[in-house]
Amino acid sequence: MSQYWSAVVHGLTPYVPGEQPKLPDLVKLNTNENPYGPSPKALQAIAAETSDHLRLYPDPNGDSLKLAVAAHYGVTTQQVFVGNGSDEVLAHVFLALLKHDEPILFPDITYSFYPVYCGLYGVEYREVPLDADFAINPDDYHGPNGGVIFPNPNAPTGRLLPLDAVAAIARHNPDRVVVVDEAYIDFGGDSAIRLIDQHPNLLVTQTLSKSRSLAGLRVGFAVGHPDLIDALERVKNSFNSYPLDRLALAGATAAMNDNAHFEHTRQAVIATRERLNAGLAQLGFAVLPSAANFVFARHPQHDAAQLAAALRERAIIVRHFKHPRIDQFLRITVGTEQQTDVLLAALAEILAV
Amino acid sequence: MSQYWSAVVHGLTPYVPGEQPKLPDLVKLNTNENPYGPSPKALQAIAAETSDHLRLYPDPNGDSLKLAVAAHYGVTTQQVFVGNGSDEVLAHVFLALLKHDEPILFPDITYSFYPVYCGLYGVEYREVPLDADFAINPDDYHGPNGGVIFPNPNAPTGRLLPLDAVAAIARHNPDRVVVVDEAYIDFGGDSAIRLIDQHPNLLVTQTLSKSRSLAGLRVGFAVGHPDLIDALERVKNSFNSYPLDRLALAGATAAMNDNAHFEHTRQAVIATRERLNAGLAQLGFAVLPSAANFVFARHPQHDAAQLAAALRERAIIVRHFKHPRIDQFLRITVGTEQQTDVLLAALAEILAV
Repeated sequence: MSQYWSAVVHGLTPYVPGEQPKLPDLVKLNTNENPYGPSPKALQAIAAETSDHLRLYPDPNGDSLKLAVAAHYGVTTQQVFVGNGSDEVLAHVFLALLKHDEPILFPDITYSFYPVYCGLYGVEYREVPLDADFAINPDDYHGPNGGVIFPNPNAPTGRLLPLDAVAAIARHNPDRVVVVDEAYIDFGGDSAIRLIDQHPNLLVTQTLSKSRSLAGLRVGFAVGHPDLIDALERVKNSFNSYPLDRLALAGATAAMNDNAHFEHTRQAVIATRERLNAGLAQLGFAVLPSAANFVFARHPQHDAAQLAAALRERAIIVRHFKHPRIDQFLRITVGTEQQTDVLLAALAEILAV
Repeated sequence: MSQYWSAVVHGLTPYVPGEQPKLPDLVKLNTNENPYGPSPKALQAIAAETSDHLRLYPDPNGDSLKLAVAAHYGVTTQQVFVGNGSDEVLAHVFLALLKHDEPILFPDITYSFYPVYCGLYGVEYREVPLDADFAINPDDYHGPNGGVIFPNPNAPTGRLLPLDAVAAIARHNPDRVVVVDEAYIDFGGDSAIRLIDQHPNLLVTQTLSKSRSLAGLRVGFAVGHPDLIDALERVKNSFNSYPLDRLALAGATAAMNDNAHFEHTRQAVIATRERLNAGLAQLGFAVLPSAANFVFARHPQHDAAQLAAALRERAIIVRHFKHPRIDQFLRITVGTEQQTDVLLAALAEILAV
């Protein structure tokens, strides 16, 4: 606390990201990173740009990346916004499109950065409880509100909302923006980007941190009606003209254009997830149906925090949230086949004690 | 305009950065980039990090870079904040430390992003006229205010305020934060960082875009009392946990640690600036004394906009601002020796017509 702080700072409760321990030989299954590396073409593109070019500012508009995203999804570049990770994109979304007089709506169990953005920008919100099976009920998102946001698949549950339910939420809120945060969509769902032409109030955000395996490069984007994109551009150009550096633009553009690597690695993650599901079930875990690169599981006879601590003693890190409805769950990232073997063997050992 | 925009978006007048034309063979003297490349050690560090590591999130705290900045300036890491370019750092400064009830103060001729940040965050401001010689008069920054910010050397004038005058402004505003934006300090001034231990209200921002020749990498930092840094960390962690990607952290850390390259290139820029000054004077230009990597010059007999247009026809780009007191000036970046020759020859030719 300091006399120099603005009132905003005094009121903040910052987000706490999953830890990034600087230890080698850890089985790191706590922050939903991709177990496979990024596209070799992305690494080549970065290497080609690692030169005296770095003395020059990057393209403030990120046109090459917008083109690649537009081509991948069959939209126009006027429907694409790019930013320094989807966290930055989401921050701009809260200020540009979700700050109105009424409270916005999001699930009670969801990405815990949403209430933090609300604190930063003075956006009122109301948490809408997931149903008993931890699913989003679209009917709960009718009625007056300042906007709606939810991840699809939801995090940390991994549950997918079908596209017709997404469309229903957009249709019931024609005067407000409905934001679908698709950080994990490539691991098991169809993107709502195909709905944006029918729904000018629908904005879809995605990241290259998960299915494109570029968490270390910080690139995200949003796709929607040009009016929504224009609002984001105006905020971005009032905050930082050049949010994406030359290397991030080069690498992200190449990654979006490499469909073969993308398909190969995401199918591998999906296959391992199903094996992880089966292994956990065999050990007595209840696992929510996941369309993401993680699973959300609880064991009826074992305390989740104790399980997480026991795994940590074996140099395996998973994520545990001390949140009322989910404090008996573990969120476990889908790793390599070998990491999955190590995890399942460790759990078998722990449960046998 | 759209019904979906927040009131904030409706009221914005975004910043317009200097153009980044995608043409080869341009003599580009419009955005104050360094004519020499970055440290080869920075390029090596980036290459070493261009690997499967990119699948993992970066260090959210940027500790390696904080250590390098702290070592360079003899401060502690608790006195250092790092961000995605000094534009992002400044944005957080406006929200965290300059948003109070009274208007903040900055010069009438200065970095034109300051009023844009004020628009984004609802910060009131009052512009303080530079004196007739385009210098900052420290006495003008007394009296009630919400904070003070100015670049030193100032942009686009290039004029340096001596450190004792900076200290006087900090001393006269003990209850408010005084921000010194030192984007260009390494080309001719002493950093006010040496004053922060005596002035807990003094915050100094810098960038790696100019003297470290990494405009394309987007890295900036702030140095000040830990209480001021803490405010910035709280806003940053409510906006984007990982603003600096792995490559930016690796490259920036190596660049800060390579003092030999830094000294060599900045001395070369300073030497060329003095030659550019002399050449412009010989052509009849009046040139303000510059401590930056650009000069601000006007010709008593020639209209600045016409001169800029004539240079552009010769594939030379300089910056011209259509702002009341300075619309007869050109801001010219200090290029290589050869670019300076080309520029001076072109101007001689244009003036001779």
